[in-house]
Amino acid sequence: MTKEKGYILLTPGPTPLPPSVRAAMAEPILHHRTEEFGQLFDFVIKEMQYVYRTQNTVLMMTTSGTGAMESAVANLLSPGDKAVVHSTGAFGDRFVAILKAYGLAPAVVSENWGHAASPEKLRDALKSNRDAKAVFLQHTDTSTGVVNDLRTLASVAHEIAPEALVVVDSVSGLAAEALETDAWGLDVVLTGSQKGLMAAPGLAFAAISAKAWRLVEAGRLPRFYFDWRTMRKSLPDRETPYTPGVTLVAGQAEALRIIRKEGIENVWRRTAELAQYTRAWAQRRGLSLFAKDPANILTAVNLPEGVDGQALIAEILRQDGISIAGGQLKLKGKIVRIAHMGYISRADLDAGFAALERRLSQVRV
Amino acid sequence: MTKEKGYILLTPGPTPLPPSVRAAMAEPILHHRTEEFGQLFDFVIKEMQYVYRTQNTVLMMTTSGTGAMESAVANLLSPGDKAVVHSTGAFGDRFVAILKAYGLAPAVVSENWGHAASPEKLRDALKSNRDAKAVFLQHTDTSTGVVNDLRTLASVAHEIAPEALVVVDSVSGLAAEALETDAWGLDVVLTGSQKGLMAAPGLAFAAISAKAWRLVEAGRLPRFYFDWRTMRKSLPDRETPYTPGVTLVAGQAEALRIIRKEGIENVWRRTAELAQYTRAWAQRRGLSLFAKDPANILTAVNLPEGVDGQALIAEILRQDGISIAGGQLKLKGKIVRIAHMGYISRADLDAGFAALERRLSQVRV
Repeated sequence: MTKEKGYILLTPGPTPLPPSVRAAMAEPILHHRTEEFGQLFDFVIKEMQYVYRTQNTVLMMTTSGTGAMESAVANLLSPGDKAVVHSTGAFGDRFVAILKAYGLAPAVVSENWGHAASPEKLRDALKSNRDAKAVFLQHTDTSTGVVNDLRTLASVAHEIAPEALVVVDSVSGLAAEALETDAWGLDVVLTGSQKGLMAAPGLAFAAISAKAWRLVEAGRLPRFYFDWRTMRKSLPDRETPYTPGVTLVAGQAEALRIIRKEGIENVWRRTAELAQYTRAWAQRRGLSLFAKDPANILTAVNLPEGVDGQALIAEILRQDGISIAGGQLKLKGKIVRIAHMGYISRADLDAGFAALERRLSQVRV
Repeated sequence: MTKEKGYILLTPGPTPLPPSVRAAMAEPILHHRTEEFGQLFDFVIKEMQYVYRTQNTVLMMTTSGTGAMESAVANLLSPGDKAVVHSTGAFGDRFVAILKAYGLAPAVVSENWGHAASPEKLRDALKSNRDAKAVFLQHTDTSTGVVNDLRTLASVAHEIAPEALVVVDSVSGLAAEALETDAWGLDVVLTGSQKGLMAAPGLAFAAISAKAWRLVEAGRLPRFYFDWRTMRKSLPDRETPYTPGVTLVAGQAEALRIIRKEGIENVWRRTAELAQYTRAWAQRRGLSLFAKDPANILTAVNLPEGVDGQALIAEILRQDGISIAGGQLKLKGKIVRIAHMGYISRADLDAGFAALERRLSQVRV
């Protein structure tokens, strides 16, 4: 149970926390039915609207990003409803799995891992599913390091299936890659606290349009803890229906203060610069990128033939005290993923690059 | 957003946190797919078995106690299944609401608020529902300050409906009132981190018997985030299927270290002493107790006629910096609830009593 001091996280969630966020979580705990907590909660909701670039209702849940994804399915759809999913990786596939768990049969468009979602494929899928209730998209996929052109994808959805809701998983994208909830017409945008939002994991958020609320009211899938209607009813009282993760909210409020001070566009710019810096390093070292359409949230780097990626990241954690993510599922052992979102500095990246270079030459066959 | 220093919590969840628990949450964050986190998680699961007094599987979820209650319904039952609920307050009624949200029609036995669950009424209800798949019970009800005789209730269930699972909400009872999961034959026991467990809110646990697992495997209600099968599959790898509340786990581990050091039976004894101390104070002051079968987790005190209970607790928070809970739903404004579970000392209670006495004489008509 001992913990390395100087432990550096370059993982795409949880990302490292600013010291003041950590300190906020260690404050004496507030009760959640008090004026003080109400102020804190209200502040978080309002600042999330700023980060989301939206006037829509924002709800907060104590759960992971996956819980937020499930809440969208359980609230928006009813038995027998049609839905379209455009998946570009493990997290798009998760939407498919959740829809199936609720007895729905989505039409799925998949793009090869490493490629961005295709507006043309989405157009074709929607043409045969114009009565779809919702289109599920990913902003960025943490498993592949790809960013999707959400603005174009949403406009295709609006054109071909104007009744369908556009539902976006931006768990790893928000507060890192540019996103315009209102300007792009995104009906539901889901996110988690532990990535660009620079807070500890355990909180999730959803921004929900008036059009989406009509489906929520009419929805006939079972839901209780994730029922958005109950959460909305508690908002005017500045509280949540059930005991929220109070310390997480205190940390998130502090992280949102930092984001507001920097300015959301500057956050996007900083993340883009770190991504550019990492891609330049990879090119210099002769390492190719996994993503054909690389995101700014993280850089997925292909490992040279003969390198055991799992051993590599284990060694880097053990010897260098740096936590770098490997590949998931079919990419296990084949790539490393270096995060740029949240509280990650150029110095953190330099340390990561040095460790990777040192260990790569050691584990290379 | 300023916070009173010297803020005292006498609320029945969240309860105050030991300083070392707060400090553990402020440590640099761990990634959840590492050996270090695996050790921490494994420790929490093993220590929870100690607290639960069980050899059964213990699962951890990032959610509130209500989420854990929902997970029991979604995992154990199937459409059309019979279930019996014995409710003694707001949280028993919550089981009923969750079951109904999932399309089930439970048989409900209710006891008047303030009274413990009746083994006779449960016996009668089970006689007409011998094919019930599960019996839902509460250990303690935080809304009324009542403790139920779980040992007797469980034995009635085993006798009359031996196939039925005994499912217990011990969100506010565990690590405060005596509970013997294995010795009393409790198939599922649900709890949350923010009460007797002395950690921040946001984690929930379920202890699940082999008999219960058979229903989980056969269950046909929709579930994804709360799917116990996925959680169990991740246990041997000492991880959770989705990103857990890492800082909450670090805090919970520290709180469990404190509990182990004191010994669980000493925890029960200490809580009982604080309850006794509070009941003696109320009697001395001529204040009657709301619960006819008072629990040790908290004492619900009736307010004298003409006292506005909501104004009273607001004034105590504002002027004395002490957070005391009022009544919920039909008890709003009529009682105060003084908690004894977790990190609450006799000195905290003395401060609460003094504040109550001072403000009661001020708001009295």
